[in-house]
Amino acid sequence: MQALYAHGPKDLRLIETPDEALGDDQVRIKMARGGICGSDMHYFNHGGFGSVKLREPMILGHEVSGHISEVGINVSGLKIGDLVAVSPSRPCASCDECLRGLPNQCLNMRFYGSAMPYPHIQGAFRESLIADASQCAKADGLSPAEAAMAEPLAVCLHAIKQAGTMLGKRVLVTGCGPIGILIILAARRAGAAEIVATDITDTALERAKNAGADVTLNTQLTPDALTPYTIGKGSLDVGIECSGAEPALRAMINALQPRATLVQLGLSGDMTLPMMQITAKELSIKGSFRFHSEFAQAVAFMQKGLINVAPLVTHRFPLGQFQDAFDTANDRTKAMKVQLDFS
Amino acid sequence: MQALYAHGPKDLRLIETPDEALGDDQVRIKMARGGICGSDMHYFNHGGFGSVKLREPMILGHEVSGHISEVGINVSGLKIGDLVAVSPSRPCASCDECLRGLPNQCLNMRFYGSAMPYPHIQGAFRESLIADASQCAKADGLSPAEAAMAEPLAVCLHAIKQAGTMLGKRVLVTGCGPIGILIILAARRAGAAEIVATDITDTALERAKNAGADVTLNTQLTPDALTPYTIGKGSLDVGIECSGAEPALRAMINALQPRATLVQLGLSGDMTLPMMQITAKELSIKGSFRFHSEFAQAVAFMQKGLINVAPLVTHRFPLGQFQDAFDTANDRTKAMKVQLDFS
Amino acid sequence: MQALYAHGPKDLRLIETPDEALGDDQVRIKMARGGICGSDMHYFNHGGFGSVKLREPMILGHEVSGHISEVGINVSGLKIGDLVAVSPSRPCASCDECLRGLPNQCLNMRFYGSAMPYPHIQGAFRESLIADASQCAKADGLSPAEAAMAEPLAVCLHAIKQAGTMLGKRVLVTGCGPIGILIILAARRAGAAEIVATDITDTALERAKNAGADVTLNTQLTPDALTPYTIGKGSLDVGIECSGAEPALRAMINALQPRATLVQLGLSGDMTLPMMQITAKELSIKGSFRFHSEFAQAVAFMQKGLINVAPLVTHRFPLGQFQDAFDTANDRTKAMKVQLDFS
Amino acid sequence: MQALYAHGPKDLRLIETPDEALGDDQVRIKMARGGICGSDMHYFNHGGFGSVKLREPMILGHEVSGHISEVGINVSGLKIGDLVAVSPSRPCASCDECLRGLPNQCLNMRFYGSAMPYPHIQGAFRESLIADASQCAKADGLSPAEAAMAEPLAVCLHAIKQAGTMLGKRVLVTGCGPIGILIILAARRAGAAEIVATDITDTALERAKNAGADVTLNTQLTPDALTPYTIGKGSLDVGIECSGAEPALRAMINALQPRATLVQLGLSGDMTLPMMQITAKELSIKGSFRFHSEFAQAVAFMQKGLINVAPLVTHRFPLGQFQDAFDTANDRTKAMKVQLDFS
Repeated sequence: MQALYAHGPKDLRLIETPDEALGDDQVRIKMARGGICGSDMHYFNHGGFGSVKLREPMILGHEVSGHISEVGINVSGLKIGDLVAVSPSRPCASCDECLRGLPNQCLNMRFYGSAMPYPHIQGAFRESLIADASQCAKADGLSPAEAAMAEPLAVCLHAIKQAGTMLGKRVLVTGCGPIGILIILAARRAGAAEIVATDITDTALERAKNAGADVTLNTQLTPDALTPYTIGKGSLDVGIECSGAEPALRAMINALQPRATLVQLGLSGDMTLPMMQITAKELSIKGSFRFHSEFAQAVAFMQKGLINVAPLVTHRFPLGQFQDAFDTANDRTKAMKVQLDFS
Repeated sequence: MQALYAHGPKDLRLIETPDEALGDDQVRIKMARGGICGSDMHYFNHGGFGSVKLREPMILGHEVSGHISEVGINVSGLKIGDLVAVSPSRPCASCDECLRGLPNQCLNMRFYGSAMPYPHIQGAFRESLIADASQCAKADGLSPAEAAMAEPLAVCLHAIKQAGTMLGKRVLVTGCGPIGILIILAARRAGAAEIVATDITDTALERAKNAGADVTLNTQLTPDALTPYTIGKGSLDVGIECSGAEPALRAMINALQPRATLVQLGLSGDMTLPMMQITAKELSIKGSFRFHSEFAQAVAFMQKGLINVAPLVTHRFPLGQFQDAFDTANDRTKAMKVQLDFS
Repeated sequence: MQALYAHGPKDLRLIETPDEALGDDQVRIKMARGGICGSDMHYFNHGGFGSVKLREPMILGHEVSGHISEVGINVSGLKIGDLVAVSPSRPCASCDECLRGLPNQCLNMRFYGSAMPYPHIQGAFRESLIADASQCAKADGLSPAEAAMAEPLAVCLHAIKQAGTMLGKRVLVTGCGPIGILIILAARRAGAAEIVATDITDTALERAKNAGADVTLNTQLTPDALTPYTIGKGSLDVGIECSGAEPALRAMINALQPRATLVQLGLSGDMTLPMMQITAKELSIKGSFRFHSEFAQAVAFMQKGLINVAPLVTHRFPLGQFQDAFDTANDRTKAMKVQLDFS
Repeated sequence: MQALYAHGPKDLRLIETPDEALGDDQVRIKMARGGICGSDMHYFNHGGFGSVKLREPMILGHEVSGHISEVGINVSGLKIGDLVAVSPSRPCASCDECLRGLPNQCLNMRFYGSAMPYPHIQGAFRESLIADASQCAKADGLSPAEAAMAEPLAVCLHAIKQAGTMLGKRVLVTGCGPIGILIILAARRAGAAEIVATDITDTALERAKNAGADVTLNTQLTPDALTPYTIGKGSLDVGIECSGAEPALRAMINALQPRATLVQLGLSGDMTLPMMQITAKELSIKGSFRFHSEFAQAVAFMQKGLINVAPLVTHRFPLGQFQDAFDTANDRTKAMKVQLDFS
């Protein structure tokens, strides 16, 4: 079985890897699709991010789907041939955070393709995978490409929930990469009345428009594009920051009205923030990280046709062409979501 | 100008009424459509409800739209010929409730067609109406029939907000009259993942199905239809009670999971409730009443095609045929929303 | 070892019972004090309440304290001689409710002295008890009588939390038995600015006054005593219903302002409620049931002198005089909290 | 009548100023006490802060009390001789923010002693003041010194409310100046179970201890003093940042557990924050600014003996010795709250 390892910056290798044994509560999955995420790109480009660094070869990948090829003896509800979206999130269900109802904050989390603990948690860009049955959401009616979008969509559903009730709200989304676009879809699904989206490239904004943004603004060309929303103390109800860029966050703080909620979803290092404004306007800045129950919800939303992610998958490469896949994903003006095809 | 007065039970009269003078901040509206609401039916059938009783003739009607025919000198943003949805809600903007941010709870509310204070607040089933410009939401792109649905839709948007975040939730709706159907539309718009609807007539459930309910159950034919949802301590996340019927509320209490929120929207007299269950499951039962900011949001949702109310308007009668209109509205198996046409 | 069994209505028996074996994560406790609770009284007087009925002899008691007499080999932090308050709540830590962060709603709860499942869960009115170390809160500095008040105080802390932020609020407490008095103490501890308490006996109101209620009203003598608080749509911010009596709940609904929160803590059968008022004022009625993290908090509050429960323990009887103890507890005009002394 | 004007940095002048006319809804107040606040110090030391700069002479002061000396003809409930705490907050009661229930965010706010709008809003360090009756809270039973503490206490009550339910929580307070100490008092009043306080001077920490902090830590002497609280992902429930110092905020972010709420109350310029940590732990950072209903609550808490601010007023100077007063206030190791005495 082939698996795609990151050995260090710009050093990906496809390596023959032995199959694992199947547990009683597990399934074996013949992998179909795997989306390349921003964190995969960090390992690919820089060997990590911030204090998180590769210390040993690690299989990348956590946005995956596949077909069941073998079923453990205790497993019910899944059978050979089923298409499943596979959640990369494996909380322990017994630590303090899990018992507070926050499994995404699990103290013993084993999330696919993470170099945070050591030994690293191996990922899912591989031809065959053993997973717990509880990680699998049946994806009948979806394409493997859509099923592999369940993970980033779950991240976005989780973030929208952190923002509180969305119905009738005027929402600002900064950063229109794959996460920003999914946030637009999720915010609309949650009842946003008006969605204003900003980015620094027109191709991204074109995709935001297609995803349903009411207003799109290029803040590279027009740095003060959000000024009309800053009248009084600001006018927008909710902000979802998806770029991880300080200027975007600062512009958002300007445009939000007093007591507004701002969800920081884009990952970034330190940022310098205007505390006087945060304090005086009594803003709430909330982080959002990963997901749990939202994974199954993401699959259900796609199955019911309530969220359509198909247009976001812009590129597909066979596993053998992994190098082209990662190079393409590096070019924001061209690619939205790039997927590997393991079949 | 003709206006439709209720004089008492089953005593509606079309009466020539003098035009009023136009204030500087007001507009004159040539009325187009007026939907008959449950409270209009109470005045028509019984001369009121509970302790609210007609004590003098009162013009009915509060779900209305029309075209601007004259504009006060201080008014901007509205011009002759504009189609507008007219909000029947006129809070004072200075009482304690208004200053707490709860205008729908205004202590000096003057809501069209209400016999609660005396003298009664006259309604809007009439050929011509003077309204404050602030009551008017421009309805370009909508039909007059749709514009007249802004009010009941606003009621439902307000109720959904009381339920908290709806994204990904499993929602039970009891009672599928016009309000129940609008709740289904609003709950879906707010991101409900699964909607279970109950009623006691199959025609209502058929409409619920068409509005997007995932499951419809006739609790007249199968009183224990919700039993599958009562496993454990109950499984549904949110309930919106739209029938005002005690058995519906009791069944809902059974089907909701611990800590669930139940919004009581259907109006009713006293009900006998299972307090032990409410306490032991730590349910939250919340009332929802009227609306404020949701009126403009309702118009915007319809304009953007995000909520489609057109199929709900099943009957139209010229003002002169008001008797047929009210008789039709009395027959739940036949009519959904009946509107008067003032043009 | 002697234990106090309820065999049926008015049929308590002190029975010699064999000691249990000590598990590795457990402690053996030489019991000191046990408070008689309302539910104990229901078993004593009626053999149960509602659908909950004794089907076999059951040891009563769940408000208990004692001294460690033996320590399991895995236990740390507890030693022989320590005074502990023992939580009667034993959630499973693995069901869906526990993993939602709601251990008090555990689907497999084994709460001392409960006839709800069968076989019944045996209680703690006994000379010696085996308990999990995790059930024990060290109570250094407290008397055994105070330590045995941790359980009802935890119930009240949990209820106050359901009411949301209490700081600066005007709070109505109906019913001034032991739970009502502890609610007054907890509401004050949580920052209530004004506490209005009602009951139907003057002795209870006298205790409410001593516990810190700002206003006490006898609603038996003056049924409309709360009328001054019903001006406008009502004026009080929060209600905590501790009596389980319908007239108290209805009066509370009248006195609360729009959007107020009402916590139903008193246990009762069905009640007939004014739904029109609940709906029109948009009240939130929330149940509150048991506790979890609040047990340790209750002990800590007492230890720091932030809540003083000592005056509430009005009677003490040696275990052998259990009959006198229960008879005394039946007389509300005389007793507040009656405790058995196992030493 | 003498009033104390700031003309620029280190340029205070006592100037004879004409009395104003009394409106029908107003009272004239013979001023008694005025506390010097951090913002007064900014005007004194630097002529402003950030973009807020003195552009004309401005009377300082907004923490004041006095005795009624004349009463407007529409005023009821106040009489000559009454001691009152005077709220410096004058929202307009008609802008969008006021009508959202956020008067502290009023778009037309006229807050005593503010250079933010131009002409500046004159303050209350003066011998005689005309105020709206609605600004006055009767302070019977308090000393003038205590009454003049109502304003900073209101600021702190407002901040504690932003933190949500406090009952049973473990709270970190960073910065133990007058605001930090009042936060400790308010957090305890709101039910905090454990209060950990940090500062960089031992005198401040000594006062924190006296105010009820359970643990006090000098982070100047021991920069990693909070390390024991960072176990796992952090252990404290709530943080209230009162120093406006970046290291304090960063240490707080480390010590709070996932999903914790952090209220930023200390005023500051830009700060560089660890966004990765905020995002990954899903913290909520909320600003808190001024107050409204909390002013009357502050007076009531003091009157009932539920919060004791008397020990905080460490220095008193007659108005004529204003220079000594401000110099003393500049020395954190010596002074807590310095008040001017106008009598």
